[in-house]
Parts: sequence; structure tokens; C-alpha cells
Amino acid sequence: MKKTMLASRDLNFLLYEWLDVLSLCRRARFDAHHRDRFDAVLVQAARLAHDHLAPVNRLLDEQEPRLTEAGIRTPEVLREALAAVRQSGLLAISQDRALGGLQLPVLVEKAAAAWFYAGSAAATAYLFPARAGSRLLQRHGGAAMVAEWVPPLLDGRATCTFCVSEPQAGSSLSDIRTRAVRQADGSFRLYGNKMWIVGGDHELCDNIVHLVLAQIEDEDGRIESDTGHLSLFLAPKYLPGSDADGPVTSAARPAGGVRNDIAATGLYPQMGQRGATSCLLSFGEGNHLPFGQAGAVAWLVGEENAGMRLVTEASPEIQIDVGLSAVALGYAGYLQALDYARERRQGRVPGVSVLGSGQIPIIEHADIRRMLLIQKSFAEGGLALALWCARLMDERDTAETATERVRAHDLLLLMTPVLKSWCAQHCVVANSLAIQVLGCYGYTRDYPVEQLYRDNRFNAIQEGTHGILALELMRDRLLKDDFRGLQRFITEVEETLGRAAARCGDVRHMAVQLQKYAERFGWIINRLRQEPEAGRRLANASVFMEAFGHFVIGWVWLEQALVAEVAYLSAYGAERNFYAGKCQTARFYFQHELPRIEPQLVLLEQLDMSAMDMQPTWF
Amino acid sequence: MKKTMLASRDLNFLLYEWLDVLSLCRRARFDAHHRDRFDAVLVQAARLAHDHLAPVNRLLDEQEPRLTEAGIRTPEVLREALAAVRQSGLLAISQDRALGGLQLPVLVEKAAAAWFYAGSAAATAYLFPARAGSRLLQRHGGAAMVAEWVPPLLDGRATCTFCVSEPQAGSSLSDIRTRAVRQADGSFRLYGNKMWIVGGDHELCDNIVHLVLAQIEDEDGRIESDTGHLSLFLAPKYLPGSDADGPVTSAARPAGGVRNDIAATGLYPQMGQRGATSCLLSFGEGNHLPFGQAGAVAWLVGEENAGMRLVTEASPEIQIDVGLSAVALGYAGYLQALDYARERRQGRVPGVSVLGSGQIPIIEHADIRRMLLIQKSFAEGGLALALWCARLMDERDTAETATERVRAHDLLLLMTPVLKSWCAQHCVVANSLAIQVLGCYGYTRDYPVEQLYRDNRFNAIQEGTHGILALELMRDRLLKDDFRGLQRFITEVEETLGRAAARCGDVRHMAVQLQKYAERFGWIINRLRQEPEAGRRLANASVFMEAFGHFVIGWVWLEQALVAEVAYLSAYGAERNFYAGKCQTARFYFQHELPRIEPQLVLLEQLDMSAMDMQPTWF
Repeated sequence: MKKTMLASRDLNFLLYEWLDVLSLCRRARFDAHHRDRFDAVLVQAARLAHDHLAPVNRLLDEQEPRLTEAGIRTPEVLREALAAVRQSGLLAISQDRALGGLQLPVLVEKAAAAWFYAGSAAATAYLFPARAGSRLLQRHGGAAMVAEWVPPLLDGRATCTFCVSEPQAGSSLSDIRTRAVRQADGSFRLYGNKMWIVGGDHELCDNIVHLVLAQIEDEDGRIESDTGHLSLFLAPKYLPGSDADGPVTSAARPAGGVRNDIAATGLYPQMGQRGATSCLLSFGEGNHLPFGQAGAVAWLVGEENAGMRLVTEASPEIQIDVGLSAVALGYAGYLQALDYARERRQGRVPGVSVLGSGQIPIIEHADIRRMLLIQKSFAEGGLALALWCARLMDERDTAETATERVRAHDLLLLMTPVLKSWCAQHCVVANSLAIQVLGCYGYTRDYPVEQLYRDNRFNAIQEGTHGILALELMRDRLLKDDFRGLQRFITEVEETLGRAAARCGDVRHMAVQLQKYAERFGWIINRLRQEPEAGRRLANASVFMEAFGHFVIGWVWLEQALVAEVAYLSAYGAERNFYAGKCQTARFYFQHELPRIEPQLVLLEQLDMSAMDMQPTWF
Repeated sequence: MKKTMLASRDLNFLLYEWLDVLSLCRRARFDAHHRDRFDAVLVQAARLAHDHLAPVNRLLDEQEPRLTEAGIRTPEVLREALAAVRQSGLLAISQDRALGGLQLPVLVEKAAAAWFYAGSAAATAYLFPARAGSRLLQRHGGAAMVAEWVPPLLDGRATCTFCVSEPQAGSSLSDIRTRAVRQADGSFRLYGNKMWIVGGDHELCDNIVHLVLAQIEDEDGRIESDTGHLSLFLAPKYLPGSDADGPVTSAARPAGGVRNDIAATGLYPQMGQRGATSCLLSFGEGNHLPFGQAGAVAWLVGEENAGMRLVTEASPEIQIDVGLSAVALGYAGYLQALDYARERRQGRVPGVSVLGSGQIPIIEHADIRRMLLIQKSFAEGGLALALWCARLMDERDTAETATERVRAHDLLLLMTPVLKSWCAQHCVVANSLAIQVLGCYGYTRDYPVEQLYRDNRFNAIQEGTHGILALELMRDRLLKDDFRGLQRFITEVEETLGRAAARCGDVRHMAVQLQKYAERFGWIINRLRQEPEAGRRLANASVFMEAFGHFVIGWVWLEQALVAEVAYLSAYGAERNFYAGKCQTARFYFQHELPRIEPQLVLLEQLDMSAMDMQPTWF
């Protein structure tokens, strides 16, 4: 079977021909870089994915982590695979040189991450929260905290988790009940349970840095029911400092050190991503008592009661990572299916007699091409959007003017939930079509596509379910903040339409179609903003997000077509085919996929209530 | 969690209020029956599903069948579960009394089968091909063959398989290479490999009756490349007659008897339905040599070269069974999600302050209701269509006039591939939404919904993939046979629209919508029939089948709404809620789901070629 999980040519197209990553090199932060360095990173990432991650991916699916008395234990091969990634030095390439990073654009870091997710989403899940986590600590943690915890997070000696959900509060964060009790030395002790923590316990490296949402008890021991009273804490699995075994000098102490009072007390067997642990963590239950007192030692990150703001600030990067995971799995399945469709011979051209004619590769059949094109349009479209968002992170973080920074910030807040949700929804569809192209083979565990399908199904649930992100988008991005992000995106689309209007032929035709939908979205957004009933607006949140996501990917395809159509004219051979494929996929998306939003727009124009009108007793 | 997998109230609605199964009792074959008997069958089927099938379903997923030297071995609990079903006497209730059946309508038998599939699709997969297989033998096998093989198939001493696919011929039946060599005694010896045979080997009962498509060698040992030269053979795992161990008097001889030269030589580990074996069977490789000569002993069923016709004749029932399997899994997931949504408390009503208010059951949230309604509309709509098709089997087989018989026959040929494909596609979507309602819980193997999703994914592949069935529908039902089935279905729809036109309000509104689509389908079908290029027609086959299937389910919902709207007026309490739910689900389907065919109709009106225009080198 196919040995590659992503197409390097496509990554290069997106980085150099569409997103023009080299133009970022003019910025002070990136001045020492040039294309050779970026290429070297991507080649190395691809090699790690092929040589270390992909080979253990199926094995991780079969040999699941186990919950033991001592904590969660993972297969030894996972440690080796992650060690190879760690040793590559690729984990912190976008970070400051002062912290051991290379100050490469986040865009390049995320492109490399796509390779890791494609190699093994479950293995990579351990590594990536540390990127967003360390950036959060750098902004809000204070000098001492940064000095102690950021270096091990960046070089992979420690992993990071975001501990948000609780058994009684999965999506309802105002019901979080983990308590933080203030100590005389300024630290806190945490008491409570956190659920569905991916990578919440393991012995794969020296330490785990948990970033925990909790409420500080007032003097009477009370807590509030309000997300405005949540604070963020850093609570490591192993504590720095000294203990009975002797002095400890580093936060990244070896396994067997002083355990904090944090224990994995549950492990949930999952349909997919079986190698990634999803566990229940108990804080302050006295499972480990290094100080003779129950309570997980923790330090406040940022200000009191700023927990939600800090987590929200980290959300765009986390959503980009989940979106990349979804896209990478969809992309890997697409390439598997493409390879199979070129090799498997079955059937004949319609109308050709069976007698004397050999069977043809199934890629010759129209319906196989249709299934491949849907996959290609989803995988390449989703990757393009994910990398555009990564570039927005660079623009935000290295902006030379406040205007530029605010623009990138607003666009990120709008786009990353859409990216995450759209990719999670559609790249599973792509995986399902990859199974279908392979037929019965696709349904067996002898071929990798079924695992991709199972693994990918997690992405519409983790880090904010589809429905919750849709509600937040409706509430926070459309209604509350004067829809600045949306207005900025409309400006982007208008700029694209302007360029397309100067062309003739297909891109112009696509632009007309996109413009028509843009106008309808404009009307719908006005209608939503004028709607007095919150229930009516929110009842349409998921439909809005799904339609909007499909529209955004339409814009991404028009953008790609604008580049590819010109490049095609002067290209030869394989290059010419590449650009022809981009253009035809854009056409296909505008013909087959984009019009699917038509009936959704009709629902939105009416602010349909037919689901809410169904009474619970009627089911 | 919820203890039931299907809704008895809904089954009763479909059987007695919509499909009027009691009216069938006026026919000679069914004269002795009345509602009590049907009810008793359904209660017993539900009990078997709950008490015997559901309890082993997860276990079958975890303890997969193994391939051993002696053949495939399954967990002991499966034998016990299937024995309970066998002993219930429910397996052959629609068959002739002379053969040990009860002569109940096929409609009732299929309603009972829905319970079995809901209890365990993998376990039930062993039992059901014997229904279609025994009916085929009765029509074409001749008296001696029927006397020998049909009774054990009907009472469950033997299971049945249809051996069609081969390694080099999955969907391309003209490439089947299994050879049949004529023997002096009129029997044949088979040589070849058959692949993806579900239940192809086991020791769960006394025997397995393989129905095998193969080509008879001519005198020079040659075979043709042509589906017109395929014949159907019966080749049992154990041979009747006597052997060295002593005389054997029954076809259903105990395990350890005389083995035919048929061996399971491969077993494919699947994503779902892991308890059902999908295996490679080798015929005539000398694995068992009871007669001192390699070759699997087989007898011709029906005439020479009639194999394709016989298999095609059995297809409607097999497609109904697969459709029922898909629907039952979708239904079971829907009820799990519904139950969870009523119990799980999370979040608050929009606009209500958090302070002092408890969390509400998630069914109060609009998006949860939307996800439940999609599931309900798919599960109940699919079940309705499946049972309508089962009733058509009764109408065909007990028709009093040739006109009635031909009508039912034509409708069946048109409808069962649509039923199978639509249910396989949409009930997996329902399963995915059930996972989504449960959130992270749904993604764990601690709850049953993820297995339903995995199990159900097989149904779009087995017994004719989605794409192949779409091609056959386009070729055989629209273009070749004067689209008689379609014209008859249009008559059905017109009759429904006539009844709806006499009403006011919602059903009338739905009828107008359905009529509009019916007219567009009429135009499209004409366009397709006039299109000279086969490639252009076939390139649109899948889109046609998907849009048509969604339209058919729209008709099914209008039919249900017509019944429910009237019944609602005189109902009270839970009954009134039930009918209100039916009406609102119909409205929801017409509002949210049916309009999804709009963009597909646009593609069909253009006979779009944008997929086929993509050249293989451009991918």
C-alpha cells in the first residue's frame, strides 16, 4: 500500500504558492530563515511520520494503555516513537530562540504537525497540547513559572493537558466544581475530578503539566456557579523541590520522584485513538501524600478568576491542532484510496464487451472518481484552511501594527471553531468514502482506512463538541462582539472576488456563485442579529456553522483555483497535471459540494424551529 | 441504559395502522391468522433479542471468531444464543405448513427479524440468508433437493451462504472463475475461491448450505467470460450419504461427518460485525477428500446458465434483510441516544441565569432535539420502507391476479436496492449522531452506540456496494425494462398525493412539496432515457439513487403523516403524544431532510460530468 500519508507537493503549493510563507521572512522574528530551512523541517517531519509514527499506529490500536495501581501504562513502542519525535527537535520550532526554539513561523510548525497526525493521531495527541500550553504560560505564567515549566514542555521532557471537563460538567463549564484552596505560601491545593483527559497519565517522559480550571474557595469554603469565577492552575504530576529521596533540582524530574496528589482513577476504552489515553483524574483524594496532607499542589496561572479568558485565548491553537488531526486523517485515507483505485482492476468501461477485454483500474469508473474527488476536495480544502489559520497566528503574533494584529486576532476567533468543526465533520465522511473505494477490503483491519475512520470520529467530540462550538460561534462571534471577525472575513472574500472578477472562465463563474451565497449570508446574519429570541437564534446554530463552514471551504477552493489556473499555463508534465487537478477539484467542489448549503440557507432564512417544536414527550 | 432496541408502538403502527397486515389475512394462504398470533410472534422476537442476542453482542465484538486448522471457531455463547432463536420456531414462520412453517405473512417475519438484527446484527447474519436461500431452492431446486435441504435450512439445523465474490471478481461478476466439472452421476465438482463469505464456516449447527455461482466447463475444459454462463450450485459443508464411519441418513448430519472439499482458508478481521465471520472459502483444493478425489461435490440448482437470474431473483429479499439490519442498528442507536438525552443533565435554558437553577436534561436543548429528530426520521422512515417492501413480497407471492403479482414484482425490483442503499447510508449517519448526543461517552466502548456505528458501516458494502447497486438501478430499472417499476411507483405516489390533496394544513403542504420533486424526477428520467452516452448516464447513477431514496422516504413520511394526523384527533395521553411525534417528524423531514435533494436534482438535470472530467493523472 501507499507509503505516504500527505502530499508534499500540495503542502508546498499551500505554503509557497498560496500562503507565501517566504513573505513572512521579512518580519524581524523570522529574518534568518529561507526556504531551504522550511523544506528541511518538512522533510524531517515526513520521515518521522513514516519511520516512527506510522509503524506503531496499528499496534497502538491493538495494545491499548492499561490502568494499573501505579497509573496508566502504555506500550513500550510508543515511548520509542515519541522519543524519536522529541529528539528531532521539531516540537518547538516556532518558539523563541531564548527558550530553545528556532523562531520559525507557526505556519511551518503546523505543516510539520500535519505529518505527525497523519502518521499517528493517537501518538501525536500526547505531544501537541504542550505547544498551546507553553504559549499560554509564556503570556500569563510569570518569569519564574516560565523558567521552570516551559523548557521541559518545549523539548518534550514534559507533556501538557488542559483539564476542563468534569463528570457533572462536560460541556457546561459553569458547573465546574473542582475547588482550589489557598495556602499560606501562595500556592493552592486542588480537590476534584477531571474527566476525558487525553494523555492525562503516562510514563512516556519525565513529567505532565496539568492546566486545571478550578474555583478558589472563599473564606467560608464556598464556591460560585459561574464561569466568571474560574481560575487556571498549573498542577504537575511530579513536584519540584526536595523530598525524602534527596534533592530535586529540575521540574522535569525522572519517574519515581515526588508525586503530586493527582491520580488516574479511570480509563475509558475508546472506539478509536485507542493509543491515546482518555482518563479520569482525581485531584486531592490523598492518593499520594508527599506533604502529609491531601490536596494537589498547584499554582495560579495569571490572575484570579481569569481562567475562562486564558483557556479561550488558547482555544484557537488547540482548535487548529484538532482540525489538523482531522484533516491529516482524512488526507491519509484519501491517498490510500487513490493508490488502491489506481492498482485494483475491476470491471470494464461502460458499453465495452467483456469478451477479450481485461479489467480496468477502478479509477476509470465515474463513481470511484466522484468518491476520490469528494475526499480530495475535503482533505486539501481542510488543510488549506488549517494552514491559513496557522498563518493568522503568525500575523497576530508578529504584527507590526495594532490594526494588523487585531485583524488576525478577530479572524482567528471566528475561523478556528469553524475549521475544527468542519474538518471533524467532513474528513470522517472522507474516511468513510475511502473505506467505500476499497470495498470489503476497506472494512477489514488488514487495511488502514477503517482505523482512520474510527480515530477521526473523536474529533467532532473532543475540545468542544460540534454543537457547543456552534452555539459559541453564534453567541460570541455573531451576536456579542459586533461580529468583527465576520466583517473582516467578508472583506477577505470581497478581495478574492475582486481578483476573480478580473479573470474569465471558470474562476469567474465560481466567484459569481460565491458572491451570491455571501449576500445571502449577509442577509441571514442581519436577520439573526435582529432576532429577539435567544432560543430561536441558538436553535439554528449548528445549521449556521455547517453552512458557513462549507462556504468558507468554497472560498479556500476559489483562492487555490486563482493560483493554480495561472500556474497551469506555464507548467509541463506532472506539474501541469497537479495544477489541472487543483482547478478541476475546485470546479467539482463548486458543482457538487457548495450547493449543498442551498437548503441550509433556506432553513436559516426562516430561522426554522421545527426541531425545537418537537416536544420531549413526543419522541 | 435503555433496555429496548426497537419501539413496539412504532412496529404496531406500521403493521396495523399503515400497512394493514390484517387485510392480508383475507388471502387463502393466511386465512387462519389474526392479530393475537402476530402480536405473540413480535413479543417473542423482542424477548429473544433482549434475553439472548443483545447480551452476547458486545462479547462477540471482543471475542472474535478464529481460523484454526479444523476451520473457523466461534465463542460458545454464540451457539447458545442462536440455539435459543432456533428453538423459538420463529425462523420459518412465513414458510409453508408442509415444510414446518406457519404460513404467516413475510411482513410479520421481517418485523420479527428487525428485532433480531437490533439485538445482534452479527449473530443474526448467520441465520438470515437461509430464508432467501430456502425460497430459492423451493422455486428451482426440484423435489428431491427441496426434501433434503429445505427442512434443515428452515428449522436452523443448517445455515446458508451465497457464494458470489472471488478475489479477482468482487463486483465484476463476469470475471467469476470458479469452475464446475460435470460428473457421470449428474453431480458436479467445484474448483475455485470465494471471498467475503459471511458465515462461510462455523460449527454452530449441523451443516452449511453454500449456494455457489460457478461456470460449467465445456468438453475442452474451457469457461466463458460472461455472466450469461454462470450457473448456481448447491454445495454443502457436510455431504449426505454414507462414509467409512457408518451410514448417514440426514443432510443435517452432526459435526464430524463427511466433509465436502470446502475449506475456510482465510478470515478477515473486520471493523465491526466482528462476530460474523467474513472468510475466504476454497473449493476443490483437496483439503478434504471424502471420495479420494479433489473437488467440492455440488448439485446444479435450476437450469444451466441460469445462475445470475436465480441470484437476481433472491436479491430483493436479501436486500430487504440488509436494509432491515441497517435500520435496526440505526433504531437501536436512536433509542439509546433518546434515553440518554432524557437522563443526562447538562446546561440551562438559553437566557436563564445559572444562579440557583439546576441543570436541565439535554433533550431540552434545540440541537439535541435536532439530532434526535434526524435519527428518528431515518430509523422510523427506513423501517417503514423495509416493511412496505416485505408486504410487497406477500402481495407478489399470494397475488390473486397476474396484474397484482407483476405490480408487486416490479415495485420490489425497483425498491429493494433503494431501500438497502438508503438505509445503509443514512442509518450510519443516525448512529454517528447517537454517538454525538452521548458526547465522549458515546465514543467509549462502555456504551453500545459506537459498536452500532462500526457494525452498520458494513451494510453499504455487503451484498452489492452502494455504487454497484446505483449502476444496476440506472441500467436495469430506468433504462432497460421500460421503467415499469418506476411508473408503478409514480402511480403509488400520485395515489398518496390524491389523498393528501383532500386534506388541509401540513400534509397538504408536504404533498405539494413532494409533487414538485416528483415532476422534476419525471423530467430527469426522460432526460436520462434520451441520453445516448452510457458513460454520462452511469456517471450520475449514485447521485440519482441517493436523491431518489431521499424522495422515497419523503413519500413514506407523508403516508405515515396521513395516518397519524387523523388518529391524533381522537387519541389521548401517550397515544396522542405518539401521533404528534409522527406528524412532527414528518414535518421535520420535509423541512430539513427532503430539501437536501435540491442540489442533487440540479446535478441530475445537467447530467453533470465534473467527476468523470477529472483525469486519473490529475489526482
